[in-house]
Amino acid sequence: MGKSQLFFAEQNCGIIYYRLECGEKVLYNLVTRMIGNTLQLGLAGLGTVGSGVYETLCRNYKLLEARAQIPFAVKKIAVGNLARKRDIEVDPALLTDDWRELVEDPEIDIIIELIGGTNEAYKLVKAALEAGKPVVTGNKAVLAEYGCELFQLSAEKGTPLYFEASCGGGIPIVQSLQNSLICNKVEYIAGIINGTSNYILTSMKEKGMPFRDALEEAQRLGFAEADPSFDINGWDAAHKALILAMLAYGTPLNTDKIAVYGIERVESIDFKLADQLGYTIKLLVVIKHHADKDSLELRVQPSFVPKEYLLAKVDGVFNAIAVKGDIVGESIFYGRGAGKNPTASAVIGDIVLAMRECRLADYHTGFQPYTKELSVVPMGETVTPYYVRFRVQDRPGVIAAIASKFAKYDVDISATTSTNESVDENGVRRNHLVFMVHACKWVRLKYVLRELADNEYIDRHPAVFRIENFND
Amino acid sequence: MGKSQLFFAEQNCGIIYYRLECGEKVLYNLVTRMIGNTLQLGLAGLGTVGSGVYETLCRNYKLLEARAQIPFAVKKIAVGNLARKRDIEVDPALLTDDWRELVEDPEIDIIIELIGGTNEAYKLVKAALEAGKPVVTGNKAVLAEYGCELFQLSAEKGTPLYFEASCGGGIPIVQSLQNSLICNKVEYIAGIINGTSNYILTSMKEKGMPFRDALEEAQRLGFAEADPSFDINGWDAAHKALILAMLAYGTPLNTDKIAVYGIERVESIDFKLADQLGYTIKLLVVIKHHADKDSLELRVQPSFVPKEYLLAKVDGVFNAIAVKGDIVGESIFYGRGAGKNPTASAVIGDIVLAMRECRLADYHTGFQPYTKELSVVPMGETVTPYYVRFRVQDRPGVIAAIASKFAKYDVDISATTSTNESVDENGVRRNHLVFMVHACKWVRLKYVLRELADNEYIDRHPAVFRIENFND
Repeated sequence: MGKSQLFFAEQNCGIIYYRLECGEKVLYNLVTRMIGNTLQLGLAGLGTVGSGVYETLCRNYKLLEARAQIPFAVKKIAVGNLARKRDIEVDPALLTDDWRELVEDPEIDIIIELIGGTNEAYKLVKAALEAGKPVVTGNKAVLAEYGCELFQLSAEKGTPLYFEASCGGGIPIVQSLQNSLICNKVEYIAGIINGTSNYILTSMKEKGMPFRDALEEAQRLGFAEADPSFDINGWDAAHKALILAMLAYGTPLNTDKIAVYGIERVESIDFKLADQLGYTIKLLVVIKHHADKDSLELRVQPSFVPKEYLLAKVDGVFNAIAVKGDIVGESIFYGRGAGKNPTASAVIGDIVLAMRECRLADYHTGFQPYTKELSVVPMGETVTPYYVRFRVQDRPGVIAAIASKFAKYDVDISATTSTNESVDENGVRRNHLVFMVHACKWVRLKYVLRELADNEYIDRHPAVFRIENFND
Repeated sequence: MGKSQLFFAEQNCGIIYYRLECGEKVLYNLVTRMIGNTLQLGLAGLGTVGSGVYETLCRNYKLLEARAQIPFAVKKIAVGNLARKRDIEVDPALLTDDWRELVEDPEIDIIIELIGGTNEAYKLVKAALEAGKPVVTGNKAVLAEYGCELFQLSAEKGTPLYFEASCGGGIPIVQSLQNSLICNKVEYIAGIINGTSNYILTSMKEKGMPFRDALEEAQRLGFAEADPSFDINGWDAAHKALILAMLAYGTPLNTDKIAVYGIERVESIDFKLADQLGYTIKLLVVIKHHADKDSLELRVQPSFVPKEYLLAKVDGVFNAIAVKGDIVGESIFYGRGAGKNPTASAVIGDIVLAMRECRLADYHTGFQPYTKELSVVPMGETVTPYYVRFRVQDRPGVIAAIASKFAKYDVDISATTSTNESVDENGVRRNHLVFMVHACKWVRLKYVLRELADNEYIDRHPAVFRIENFND
């Protein structure tokens, strides 16, 4: 350990906990005395979340030990590159660059998968379950893609798979659905579960920024990645939605089953108009059970949300998930949906659960997505009210042309409004016409829009948002 | 069973589930075939929550059985009065009027205490734990009063005591603190945890109603009981706060340790002024850890909450609890904090947990309130900003008299405002002077108020509200 200095050492229930100070940095370590009862963890991945987990396990070890009353230690850590410089220092003796060592080590009881990506992570989770080792993962992509297979394997092997950190970061939605809310038929889940897009939409709302500027600012401040595609195109939220839907309804799903629209085409003018009309715009995940056909509606879309609804008030990087159960009514869970520490908090909650349940031969989480095949409602059949904004040339007959198409397909307009005209770069007078549409099937509105697409006085791409009203 | 008709019968994992229709009513029943694996529940209490639990267990039995994968049945139900007419019908063979039968029945595995009150409920919980039977309770009064003793007994006997339903009805705050958030040092808990008072305050805010009218309306609509004292004087919220504090900090507490103020003296004018100043008024529970002295601040008070803070937006009978953890940041849990079904949902979440954990010899929930004695910060030492409104006679020198007392005790005024004068019943011109006070110790503001109490031009009871700012 070179010049490092022993800071304090303490023996507690078979664990020696010590902390070493080396210059500016703090070297945390947990060493077990290898007594029989101590549970050994194998941590795969030491990126942002992995180092958050390791750091927190060390920092709050005494608290965890007192609360969980189970002695534990991190026995091995698999990393991609042994030589890489890290923000936290870790005893090099713990490190390996082969995750198979974790799975094959007979002394390791629980595997924590935080390597990200889908290929290696999938292999690791599968190998661990096959070896009968409970797995804790925060990997939404793996679960959205291979969830059914992995949960089936988990059940076959009687080996649990924990995934609180895969949806909603620090928000305890998975355990709540599995435990506290277990007696509820879930009527719907609606959520804001992508912090980056919520941050961008909040900037657009509050500062009147256009999408591109808001995205750039988010990148500058570290709230959006260099390649933010997955966050802004809705797919990060969609992965989480699939996991929540599989959990709540026990049905196999995959990425083909969900309709996904991102926030790239949301314009400042829609925020202004939404505000005037009593709404705000949120990238909303909607999972709704249709009891009549026992089928699921599954979609991610920027949506109009009434200002007085609590989800409308969830701003910045915060996430929130509303669950309507037949017994409990509506519950909403709000918190940090991403980031090193909030995600680490969720991972560690699962680790403790895994440690407790390690002592049960046949623990059952109630998560069996492969047991019941629910159909998915085709998007065309889904029903909501809509906001439709057309940019048009300001000339006689345009409103009539639009209104007649709505009438043709029996789409009922509840209100209309228009903006002041302005003159565009070609000297043409233009304005925006907004139609608020009563709840109707999407397919009917689609026919209307298709027929209007060839009208020379109407811009080709109207802005269309679903209006989501939730009543409890 | 007389003329009742067998509706359907199904055999599932050792349980026969059947439902009988007798005229208008539905008779639910669960009968076990007494096979070895089936867990037997003893339900004590068939009032509002008890019948909600029984009804839900019957109605969603198949769902619960599929999710929990543990066959169970209600074996006996203890009621106060066997002859009483009930909203739900229950096989009379299940009923007894002596809860001791539940505890003494060797076949009953888990006791569910929903009889309310403190005397018999305390005896029942104690007897059940002593008999080594896990207990599920929703009884906040018993836990606030006897919690330390009962949890100590629970630990000694290795027999768990579950109490999700005792704080926040259907909101899964207890399990979240015990499990998902287990690695967090809790910095504060702030919550709206009394639905009746929140309903009244919401009516006062939205309809400008005076307190008495809002209370009467709440009673008429069934949101307040005939005797609403416990809800409006803050003690219902205080009981829940004590349980949350014991849970989060593992320290013994009782009703002497918390400062409690109700909503009886909140006036319409304070809502108007709060609104102008950017706040609303909520009956807020505040549990705050002072890390420097390892002590707790514990209080229930109507408080000014900034409008943009999420808790300010929790209206009507809804509850919400904010928890700030050192790792996860701020999480907020929102939902129905009372009522038959939401509370039943929480009770059943605990029942399933109890059933799962029945198979563990030494389950530990991390709830040991007797292990660490934290001191409680004296109210005089607690620090917040304040809103102070004086009703005064409108004459020269009054503002100066008040301001000089603030100055004398070094209490810093951040802003002042006054209302238009009006003439009272005696022809005296009066108005209201509002002082917004920077954060200071309560004791200093108390000195100021004491000195002003004898000023003949100032009404004796100024309105004083703490201003609660939460930043994450």
